[in-house]
Amino acid sequence: MTATPSRPVVLTGDRTTGPLHLGHYVGSLEARLKLQDEAEQYLLLADMQALTDHMGRHFTVRENVIEVAIDYLAVGIDPAKSIICIQSQIPELAELSMLLMNLVTVSRLERNPTIKEEIRLRGFERDIPAGFLVYPVSQAADITAFKATVVPVGRDQLPMIEQTNELVRSFNAGVGRDILVECGALLSPVGRLPGVDGKAKMSKSLNNAISLGAEPDEIHKAVKRTYTDSNHLRVDDPGRVEGNVVFSFLDAFESDKQRLAELKRRYRAGGLADSALKRLLDERLQAVIEPIRLRRQRFAKDPGEIINVLRHGTERAREKAAATFAEVRRALGLAYFA
Amino acid sequence: MTATPSRPVVLTGDRTTGPLHLGHYVGSLEARLKLQDEAEQYLLLADMQALTDHMGRHFTVRENVIEVAIDYLAVGIDPAKSIICIQSQIPELAELSMLLMNLVTVSRLERNPTIKEEIRLRGFERDIPAGFLVYPVSQAADITAFKATVVPVGRDQLPMIEQTNELVRSFNAGVGRDILVECGALLSPVGRLPGVDGKAKMSKSLNNAISLGAEPDEIHKAVKRTYTDSNHLRVDDPGRVEGNVVFSFLDAFESDKQRLAELKRRYRAGGLADSALKRLLDERLQAVIEPIRLRRQRFAKDPGEIINVLRHGTERAREKAAATFAEVRRALGLAYFA
Repeated sequence: MTATPSRPVVLTGDRTTGPLHLGHYVGSLEARLKLQDEAEQYLLLADMQALTDHMGRHFTVRENVIEVAIDYLAVGIDPAKSIICIQSQIPELAELSMLLMNLVTVSRLERNPTIKEEIRLRGFERDIPAGFLVYPVSQAADITAFKATVVPVGRDQLPMIEQTNELVRSFNAGVGRDILVECGALLSPVGRLPGVDGKAKMSKSLNNAISLGAEPDEIHKAVKRTYTDSNHLRVDDPGRVEGNVVFSFLDAFESDKQRLAELKRRYRAGGLADSALKRLLDERLQAVIEPIRLRRQRFAKDPGEIINVLRHGTERAREKAAATFAEVRRALGLAYFA
Repeated sequence: MTATPSRPVVLTGDRTTGPLHLGHYVGSLEARLKLQDEAEQYLLLADMQALTDHMGRHFTVRENVIEVAIDYLAVGIDPAKSIICIQSQIPELAELSMLLMNLVTVSRLERNPTIKEEIRLRGFERDIPAGFLVYPVSQAADITAFKATVVPVGRDQLPMIEQTNELVRSFNAGVGRDILVECGALLSPVGRLPGVDGKAKMSKSLNNAISLGAEPDEIHKAVKRTYTDSNHLRVDDPGRVEGNVVFSFLDAFESDKQRLAELKRRYRAGGLADSALKRLLDERLQAVIEPIRLRRQRFAKDPGEIINVLRHGTERAREKAAATFAEVRRALGLAYFA
């Protein structure tokens, strides 16, 4: 075991397939805002990983590198504290991926439950792009190149962390030295935000998301169609709180927890209208999104500045990844010209 | 279709898992000696590919980068004409591999007859390292990064060329431009040299090879155990020429073809002793190997010079690969900082 450095190193980020939405805000962006004060935090704009299933839509991937970077800045990620970097601009990540691929079998990758589920979701079956099958290896390269000790994940991604640590142990055992570092999962204490339609996952492609740049009117409309309790037909009827998306959202955005408990009690008993609840939710969401939207608009006007932030972050990230990869190379005897 | 440049670009090379032997000399080194005067020839020391099944023996891979480079120089490869380069020192090859992996499915890779056969030979079955399954993609990256138009291969490797050209077409169609270049196979006019034991393939690991640095005495011993015709017990018996390894070797190394035809006639008729044939073969092999062995010894004394040759070749190769990869990046919209 290598000694844990006093300051944790966090690796997190997003596939750049679309701008971020409220689900990301609750699930991860809020946590990153806290982590940036406590940790050496790398936010990876994973454009290479996005390409594993977006090869025909590469311009979407590129556009969304910029969009997601704007989202980060707009929610308050501070590039002086967090290192925002672009995966494709750090060649050492590809080089380390290629090496780690030799330490895992195809059948082990196929058994990865996260991959299995994603293959099912995308309808790939036997026609999985090879790049998609090996993306857990690429993720392991991202994590280990930065020597991350902490990786924020959802419960469904725990197998990815296990896979990464297997690769770390296998690599270190192979070279007889602890070069790469095992990481720990940081599970989100907050549940995943459902889509406004009540589906388990908020997602742009499912058209059930509220984006971080949403205009007031978009928020109104989204709240209006937010799923409540389809059996709660008359105000006086008792209503269900569980599975009621308006309450899931209020759990995330109503800070007055006593008031929220009282609303739930009244809703269950009957006599609280969906419209009243939705007014409250609309108010809360407008308050959360307005400052983000305004900052988004300001940043979007200055793409040169965004590129500068990305350039600077990517340079810092590359320094760290290159240092790790130099150790990897030396350990494997591949430093011919050093 | 892109226009074929007037001077062909050749990509060839060797997995660096062991020093080269007579089989390599006849099968490919001789051809490369000719090609270096006619083409822009890249000789890739494929250490990354060697690691796909040598991860636990990485120091062997490293040592043999140097040994194979010495073999090249000893047979007369001229670093002023041929570009000798090390795969692991050209990050663009890993980067391009990662991108091309998104354009081929796992099942397509599993159907590749070359991969199927190699999986069988290595006894991998379902426990194929992921890096091994995707090595045809890595090969395609090597070929396309240098925009090679000609790839010398054995007949058994034709599926690799087809796989590469599929990836080229798929990539170019995806970006709507002809960035990568299709290649053609250059089939060796000479058959593959068998092992001295009569097995189909000369291979160091099968212990049936004669190395390019073999001492006179090693050559004697190897010739002595070289397989002839096990039914040719008495000199006067008629002997078989087909499958007789001594004749296979003489086909490759006896330049007086009329004399060779006469020997075959006499052997078939009966009356020509194996010992006489072997004396001739020994003479021929000593003549071929002696100058190579002497040059090998001279080069082996100056490892610094070998490293210089490799450094220079790798720099030249990297320039070409980086130029191609810059085009690939631009075509995919991934040139954020350009």
